[in-house]
Amino acid sequence: MTLTTDFGLADAYVASMKGVALGIVPDVDLIDITHAVPPRDVSRAAYILASACPYFPAHAVHLAVVDPGVGTSRKPIAVSTPHGTFVGPDNGIFHEVLVGQGIIEPDTGIVIAGNAIELTGERYRRQHVSATFHGRDIFAPAAAYLALGVSLMDLGRRLSTLTPLCLPQPQVAAGVVRGHVRHIDTFGNAITNIHRDLLPSTPAIFGASIRIDGLSKNYQEREISALVGSTGYLEIAIRGGSAHERLGIELGDEVLVRGDG
Amino acid sequence: MTLTTDFGLADAYVASMKGVALGIVPDVDLIDITHAVPPRDVSRAAYILASACPYFPAHAVHLAVVDPGVGTSRKPIAVSTPHGTFVGPDNGIFHEVLVGQGIIEPDTGIVIAGNAIELTGERYRRQHVSATFHGRDIFAPAAAYLALGVSLMDLGRRLSTLTPLCLPQPQVAAGVVRGHVRHIDTFGNAITNIHRDLLPSTPAIFGASIRIDGLSKNYQEREISALVGSTGYLEIAIRGGSAHERLGIELGDEVLVRGDG
Amino acid sequence: MTLTTDFGLADAYVASMKGVALGIVPDVDLIDITHAVPPRDVSRAAYILASACPYFPAHAVHLAVVDPGVGTSRKPIAVSTPHGTFVGPDNGIFHEVLVGQGIIEPDTGIVIAGNAIELTGERYRRQHVSATFHGRDIFAPAAAYLALGVSLMDLGRRLSTLTPLCLPQPQVAAGVVRGHVRHIDTFGNAITNIHRDLLPSTPAIFGASIRIDGLSKNYQEREISALVGSTGYLEIAIRGGSAHERLGIELGDEVLVRGDG
Repeated sequence: MTLTTDFGLADAYVASMKGVALGIVPDVDLIDITHAVPPRDVSRAAYILASACPYFPAHAVHLAVVDPGVGTSRKPIAVSTPHGTFVGPDNGIFHEVLVGQGIIEPDTGIVIAGNAIELTGERYRRQHVSATFHGRDIFAPAAAYLALGVSLMDLGRRLSTLTPLCLPQPQVAAGVVRGHVRHIDTFGNAITNIHRDLLPSTPAIFGASIRIDGLSKNYQEREISALVGSTGYLEIAIRGGSAHERLGIELGDEVLVRGDG
Repeated sequence: MTLTTDFGLADAYVASMKGVALGIVPDVDLIDITHAVPPRDVSRAAYILASACPYFPAHAVHLAVVDPGVGTSRKPIAVSTPHGTFVGPDNGIFHEVLVGQGIIEPDTGIVIAGNAIELTGERYRRQHVSATFHGRDIFAPAAAYLALGVSLMDLGRRLSTLTPLCLPQPQVAAGVVRGHVRHIDTFGNAITNIHRDLLPSTPAIFGASIRIDGLSKNYQEREISALVGSTGYLEIAIRGGSAHERLGIELGDEVLVRGDG
Repeated sequence: MTLTTDFGLADAYVASMKGVALGIVPDVDLIDITHAVPPRDVSRAAYILASACPYFPAHAVHLAVVDPGVGTSRKPIAVSTPHGTFVGPDNGIFHEVLVGQGIIEPDTGIVIAGNAIELTGERYRRQHVSATFHGRDIFAPAAAYLALGVSLMDLGRRLSTLTPLCLPQPQVAAGVVRGHVRHIDTFGNAITNIHRDLLPSTPAIFGASIRIDGLSKNYQEREISALVGSTGYLEIAIRGGSAHERLGIELGDEVLVRGDG
């Protein structure tokens, strides 16, 4: 079972969820994806999940709790797919990974493959459910029972649509690809939402008042590099430093690609 | 086995303890509660342990090392209870969780249930014990042998009293509950030491120059909320933000509750 | 299997490596040593590995990825020793732990015990190897296959020399030991590269414009202490505080020891 939250590692929240899970399925592996999602940043969590989950075995259960709407009408859900099972709030947190797998339609959230349910089964949650910590009281138990082998359909009732996340896609017009910086990583690399499939053969990349002609193969080749990163997206990097800090490139900044690089 | 320390995650200290434990009990699960306790803050560690440990299975061994007195006369201890076994220094770090379970008397630290020992058994520590890292040389081995099934009484000699932690309790007088902020969590929620059992039916909450009438059910209901949090204590929160930052409410601040909210 | 990187815990990088490893060896224990190595700081990673690895069982596989040269000509390597197996880039990251075990010569990196290989076996890496994330595509699979029991020699071709790390050693002249601060830990303790074997019987320690006469046994004994820390090296500490902050002692600062303390 993997865990992704915005709980940080200084409080008891993550450990409480793990304790509950271990009480249900004692021999489960608990793998942290990250607990450093900025508070309430569902979009960031969606990005991290889409980046990490494809590398886990298909039987993995992925528990994710970035849940500002806890205790309101947003649904607790679980989704089983050929590449993993996902448990968390229905707020778009799984949107990117499920779209990537062809499980939901990107614009509508309509479920077109796999199985999605609302977690309604009272047998598979803690006896007393708090209003403010469904991670411990609903999601961790559900994920643990799924890891134990309980059938998804026993945990609730089928959903035909999930809440979609609005993710601006790159626009292509007149030979120009117009995208933006989707993530700044630990190293200060600026990772865009422009997939390698959209890149022309000799690209010129424009972003943060710089122009870069052509792609580098690694971080050492040039002082300022544009390259296709390890998840297949165009990124901008600086040799031995942070492109974010040294070029002033920020999350959300526009990045353009033309074919004359 | 769980681990709680003030060692952070940038040094080799936590890993060294885990390596020692795995050498004794190779198939043990090692679950981090937190390693982000501020340096030497025994009270914080006590709070986190009391918040997390109740959610773990009863056979869990909880290793906790926030130990400014390492190498002095403070005793290394282990305590077995119906809800878990605790291993660490006798400096109050387990006070709150043991009081919560009715294992020790809050004012005196007298052991009234379970079994407490001083870790004196030389067979169950590393051969060379350093003066500055009992986490690695005494506590991790003891916890590992306990997880392996060695009997508590084999590890040392019985103690009848543990060092208590001085924790100011809320005062109730003339219909007013007077408590304080016990913890600021990752989200900036200000969690008080006032348990739900002390709250009047229509409370008015006063803290940080604000007055809040009535309790919210979740974090979305109002801009500024008072609510009973997931461990049963009154907390003050801001919708979509940090009450700590936006209201200026600090650790230790007084919080009053009256019955006319 | 242990993991040591400069990837931090906010991105998907560490989890991606773990997912890949679990796909190969599902029941492996994954123990984080640290992911908080400063970006590209091979020397820091080498220090942390040398501090932690000796406490792990001899069958442990230690995966370490601080790899600024990823995608260039630096070799991916694995080294088996009587005290553990090491997998990562050939950039000196294992230098200190391997020298400590007598596996390589400190000045030349010549392999004098154990077995070192370049990871060339295509069967033991991911099918598509990115240019920028060998941690996921080469090192994690190699470490996983080694943990699974595949023979080291099946993964590549033998190397007779590894890239050494230049680590200044303490100088002893005219009864004075001249070393430096090798590490500032979480508590602000300044740990030197001067081993206890180099200390005179009544040392006087000079560093950061202070003089300390004699060694303390623990952190409580004196306001400002010099003591032999838990890995056997001289360190300077402050009771209840950070020597780094309060004495202004920095990484790399010179520390002198004379015999008249």
